[in-house]
Amino acid sequence: MKRSRPIQIDWQPDKKSQLPVYRQIVQYVCDKVANGEWAIGSRLPSQRALAESFAVNRSTISTAIDELTSYGIISGEHGAGTQIVSNTWSLMLPTSLSWKKYISSGYLQENNKRMQQINRLEFAPDIIRLGTGELDPRLFPQQMWAKTLQKLSTEITSLGYAEPLGIPELRQAIARHMKKLGVDVSTKNILITSGALQALQLIASCMLEEGSTVFTEAPTYLKSLQMFQSAGLNLNGIPMDHDGLKYWEIEKQLKKSDSAILYTIPTNQNPTGITMSNLRRQELMDFCIKNRLPIIEDGAYQELCFDDEAAIPLKAIDDNGMVMYLGSASKSLAPGLRIGWVIASEPVIQRLGDAKMQMDYGASSLSQLVFAEFLNSGMYEKYLTELKVELKKRRDNALVTLDKYFKDIATWNVPVGGFYIWLTFNDEVEIDGLFEKAIDQGILLNPGDVYDFKHNRSLRLSFAYVDCGEFTSAMMMLNEILKS
Amino acid sequence: MKRSRPIQIDWQPDKKSQLPVYRQIVQYVCDKVANGEWAIGSRLPSQRALAESFAVNRSTISTAIDELTSYGIISGEHGAGTQIVSNTWSLMLPTSLSWKKYISSGYLQENNKRMQQINRLEFAPDIIRLGTGELDPRLFPQQMWAKTLQKLSTEITSLGYAEPLGIPELRQAIARHMKKLGVDVSTKNILITSGALQALQLIASCMLEEGSTVFTEAPTYLKSLQMFQSAGLNLNGIPMDHDGLKYWEIEKQLKKSDSAILYTIPTNQNPTGITMSNLRRQELMDFCIKNRLPIIEDGAYQELCFDDEAAIPLKAIDDNGMVMYLGSASKSLAPGLRIGWVIASEPVIQRLGDAKMQMDYGASSLSQLVFAEFLNSGMYEKYLTELKVELKKRRDNALVTLDKYFKDIATWNVPVGGFYIWLTFNDEVEIDGLFEKAIDQGILLNPGDVYDFKHNRSLRLSFAYVDCGEFTSAMMMLNEILKS
Repeated sequence: MKRSRPIQIDWQPDKKSQLPVYRQIVQYVCDKVANGEWAIGSRLPSQRALAESFAVNRSTISTAIDELTSYGIISGEHGAGTQIVSNTWSLMLPTSLSWKKYISSGYLQENNKRMQQINRLEFAPDIIRLGTGELDPRLFPQQMWAKTLQKLSTEITSLGYAEPLGIPELRQAIARHMKKLGVDVSTKNILITSGALQALQLIASCMLEEGSTVFTEAPTYLKSLQMFQSAGLNLNGIPMDHDGLKYWEIEKQLKKSDSAILYTIPTNQNPTGITMSNLRRQELMDFCIKNRLPIIEDGAYQELCFDDEAAIPLKAIDDNGMVMYLGSASKSLAPGLRIGWVIASEPVIQRLGDAKMQMDYGASSLSQLVFAEFLNSGMYEKYLTELKVELKKRRDNALVTLDKYFKDIATWNVPVGGFYIWLTFNDEVEIDGLFEKAIDQGILLNPGDVYDFKHNRSLRLSFAYVDCGEFTSAMMMLNEILKS
Repeated sequence: MKRSRPIQIDWQPDKKSQLPVYRQIVQYVCDKVANGEWAIGSRLPSQRALAESFAVNRSTISTAIDELTSYGIISGEHGAGTQIVSNTWSLMLPTSLSWKKYISSGYLQENNKRMQQINRLEFAPDIIRLGTGELDPRLFPQQMWAKTLQKLSTEITSLGYAEPLGIPELRQAIARHMKKLGVDVSTKNILITSGALQALQLIASCMLEEGSTVFTEAPTYLKSLQMFQSAGLNLNGIPMDHDGLKYWEIEKQLKKSDSAILYTIPTNQNPTGITMSNLRRQELMDFCIKNRLPIIEDGAYQELCFDDEAAIPLKAIDDNGMVMYLGSASKSLAPGLRIGWVIASEPVIQRLGDAKMQMDYGASSLSQLVFAEFLNSGMYEKYLTELKVELKKRRDNALVTLDKYFKDIATWNVPVGGFYIWLTFNDEVEIDGLFEKAIDQGILLNPGDVYDFKHNRSLRLSFAYVDCGEFTSAMMMLNEILKS
């Protein structure tokens, strides 16, 4: 029995961490108990001794002790010492080692810290969000929205459980909508999801074996999520040129992988803004057919091509059912609706639909009805037309601004649509320092590193969230910072 | 090389199955290829020979062959024979053996077939749904709904990504609402989910180790889902008496389990309608504290107690943070909103919130805003009062009907709220036969077996979906069937 074994403390909280010090101490104790280092019956040092060991003040220790006591991990009279009394509750705590890998691992990886910081800073007041992957709220089609809700206010007479694949009206509307993009499918090939992110989650958790390889563009926004990595999948970044993914680079790596899939954003890629040429698309399809490599095509920015002759989706030239197409209302209309869709062969849709029912019993019927009405009334198409005019104006302004202030120190691409410009500095720039200094000036940047497989000296700029004036003045400030 | 190995067929499709025959054949072939029995290069018999082996007609074979060809599994000229050419695509198919257990296992268990059949029959026209766990759509508060949507039509001016835990307005409104039920918590203890089902999914997938025991009432609606079993958790049914769960029966089984949790619906339990007495609640809490057994309290029917002196939630007497309370708008208002909530200690909420962000990036903001408006305007409370009057009327009618037609052949409880009456026949009744005969008469039953751990001779009756006249006439018909 280890009942009286004295506990040794050889650790101190990180006072610079985002996590409050008392919480770090709670985590530390939970870890020690959960992994068995501190057995039930072990005695903690006195609060005074703990305060000394951790180099914190007594009130912090007191807060941590109270929390640990409330979890039932420790128990004891003040002064008389405190004992470890249980580790049952460890399963309820955020640091338990027993939590499934796919949840816990995601938040332990380094680059996610930066993403969490960015996500938090996005809610700071008056910050200029120069890289945000979200539409300017001022572009929200409030008039159309009001009209839609007013119509539905009398039309909706009940809201029961919806069909597993999504409400028929919306699936029909999406089938018609996709036809205009060149994709001709029936409603049986369509599953409604809570955003395209959920579609990725469904695919990762029920269609890919642990250890499978996911080929994808390098850089890719997928790298900034932890979803695929957390599911035990290996991301393998493939470089791009101006025409998109250099698919031939896949071949030699394909042989090493038993099971593989390709994830691509061929149109207005996130984060580079590159759109794959139509020739490259055809070559890529041929390559994937030859190599039996299935494709996840993320079409989040598909409908945001500024010119008339838009790139056609891979799904439109997919005669072999190789492609799962992901659509979304999040980038082109409003992420808060949480509406996305998957287009795939029927058995795949059935399987994903089963999984979705187990996850959350379907997407909000209200959101589904709203988006169906947007599509069916023709308002969505009208809105998209206007939106693209505005985004194009912002892109043009961005290019003029870059030309004026960054020509000598950086290069960038000219996107044909979407949200993003990928800016790369000619010389090595200390991006972390730039990020911090920009924050001090009220500018939030999205450093390229969080999207890439290796270090780079790039920034993801977005002209979608800020207006022309904001973009220009923020870039001028950035230029000043770089000069100093 | 097995290139020319002839394939042996020793199986035939089940023509009585719900699955189309051609689909069964596709699955059969996929299984054989996926598990390696039929190697790449193997030759399939001719279509004529296949039709004979499977005892189906040629057109069925042709359909199956076309589908398999489109997947890239087989290839070949008609007449010249067909070869297995790939098993890469097996990872995309519903029968792949490699799919994760928690998705595929769920739909392979026997009792789920009955549930699937019930779910399907619920959409049949003119069927009387005598056991449905859903509110009558005719009770939908259309006036309040119209008012809410009209208000929001002008108030909503954008719909961006919401905060991870849910929009603050809704969490504040739920905190105020829960206070009326005796549960006093801050917004940091509240996570908004896409229905209570998603809350269960989040708990199952990120807070419980595989192999953990989930104690729960027997019978319980949890048995009709596959979620917990699919996550590798062991359901352990504990019997009830009129005061609810006989918690003392847990003790001897607790010793066998390293890691365990209790799932309970203390108020208007699904499917029995039993409400735990307040004395039993206090005893249960004491027992769980003593044994460090955390509790998931499902409060889906908590707000549907007909009398003024309603049962108080376990969460209201939870001084030790042992209870995760699940709330939902699905049973009391509308399942199509997909709004539920979890109330728990802060670290648990943070962990579940992280998991939720990985799953779908939060619930629909629109649904959240609608429910917040319902709560804040006072409409929800007014609606609940009226709803309970109507449900009580229906319950009373149900009891009168049962007394008149079933007194001599069955027993039942008197629920103090909720949707359900649990009817048990005195003598053994062939429930499967009764189910089928009732279907012929246009009546859909929910047999007790799907909710129980062992065979029973009970039915879950619901007075929530059908009105008084429908209930009475359906029960009269059922009585006739039983007599014949």
